[in-house]
Amino acid sequence: MSCRVFILSDHTGITAGSIARALLAQFPHQDFALEEHPFLDDRKKLSAVAEQIESLVQAGTPPLVFSSIVDGDSRALLKEKSGGRLFDIFQAFTPGLEELLGVAASPVAGHLHGIGNADLYIERIRALDYAIIHDDGGITKNYAKADTILIGVSRSGKTPTCLYLALHNGLQAANYPLVDEDLEAARLPALLQEHRGKLVALTIDAAQLHRIRQQRRPGSRYSSLEQCQWEVHQAEALFREYRIPVIDTTAISIEEIATRITTEIMQDMY
Amino acid sequence: MSCRVFILSDHTGITAGSIARALLAQFPHQDFALEEHPFLDDRKKLSAVAEQIESLVQAGTPPLVFSSIVDGDSRALLKEKSGGRLFDIFQAFTPGLEELLGVAASPVAGHLHGIGNADLYIERIRALDYAIIHDDGGITKNYAKADTILIGVSRSGKTPTCLYLALHNGLQAANYPLVDEDLEAARLPALLQEHRGKLVALTIDAAQLHRIRQQRRPGSRYSSLEQCQWEVHQAEALFREYRIPVIDTTAISIEEIATRITTEIMQDMY
Repeated sequence: MSCRVFILSDHTGITAGSIARALLAQFPHQDFALEEHPFLDDRKKLSAVAEQIESLVQAGTPPLVFSSIVDGDSRALLKEKSGGRLFDIFQAFTPGLEELLGVAASPVAGHLHGIGNADLYIERIRALDYAIIHDDGGITKNYAKADTILIGVSRSGKTPTCLYLALHNGLQAANYPLVDEDLEAARLPALLQEHRGKLVALTIDAAQLHRIRQQRRPGSRYSSLEQCQWEVHQAEALFREYRIPVIDTTAISIEEIATRITTEIMQDMY
Repeated sequence: MSCRVFILSDHTGITAGSIARALLAQFPHQDFALEEHPFLDDRKKLSAVAEQIESLVQAGTPPLVFSSIVDGDSRALLKEKSGGRLFDIFQAFTPGLEELLGVAASPVAGHLHGIGNADLYIERIRALDYAIIHDDGGITKNYAKADTILIGVSRSGKTPTCLYLALHNGLQAANYPLVDEDLEAARLPALLQEHRGKLVALTIDAAQLHRIRQQRRPGSRYSSLEQCQWEVHQAEALFREYRIPVIDTTAISIEEIATRITTEIMQDMY
């Protein structure tokens, strides 16, 4: 029988959910059923969930409870109702921080993804507009304003990465798909030459590319394994020739591709 | 002088960074300088950062250290070098989980955003393609395949929310901008009528809308405060008339809008 896991938050619960998943992944032979309860920002909603937990405890099927709730009274109530199975993120670290910093914490809810900041929002919207307009090589004249330009064959992960960089990092990321003509010529297209310092290449295992393209256009030349192998081979030769930093997207998440770009590659660019 | 804060991870560090920011927000009168060190997945990289921390400790300017590193040896080294200022996410919760579950944890790195899962990746890419094609009312014939359809005036937050829902939740989210004709008629456009059960409305404070539109087309009628006030007023009347669930995006983040849609509104839909 799977173990029920409650994820409780006074905000989105995204962070609490990530922590719970990471911790529970250390127990691969157990089966967990996660239930997310975000926005528990008033006493009534909190009490309803606390009672649900209490009744599970009393029934002899106590759930695990992960909480990123900030409010002290709410946390005390949860502690009381959860039968010793509460993993309270604030309780775990706040006392230690108070001691080291020599000041008492003042509870502030909903700062896990710190927005409410209009300037930051506008910056992200602008970056998103840029990413959409400059997706898939559509408009190429504004590359001078790009923070980075991703290149690679079709479906190597450029578009989701550009959108992620805009949404989460406020970066203006353009992308240019290498097409057959570029790959046959084995030369970097002229319009990219002048922006070489901003280029990041994405590559992908040909078999995985084949699988992804099959979803898009099944049975086409575009999605054939042979075509995928040729494109990847040519593209990687081109990246080597021009010494463009390369990320292999085959087995990693969009979050990871984006983080590698911002923390490893872009730090060397500027 | 600001307090240096190291964020250490064997993967992206996104979760460790979120926790650190949330905890440090409880100390609003302190000044913190965050430094993110992701992908510390081999001993050499880890040792270099540990030595940097040790030299700061020895110089009498010890940093705070937040770590989501899974590997036990690495964590022990950090504990030794950080002068008692290490906040170790795995150490905080793993012993309690082991006790409750009655089994020992087996360290698994990089599962915080659990991908490497090709099916999930393909699902998200498909959702992203859908969101881009169905952005801004562009193509409206495939609304039957939408998981949700966001409506609202221009710049109320529809596009970033749709892209977020695709990237993070794999949901096919379309969006339709209410234009002057729709707002004057005060009627839901016919093509939306048959999908009323999937509609989610976004609204925004007119002054904030004015500010966002000014960034896009300064001094235009489109971005005037008067026009923004009229559009928001008309749109909100229409949402009430058709009893469409509404989210006010003025002061909340894209993450929060998306989470409200998936956890509150969509749960009632299906």
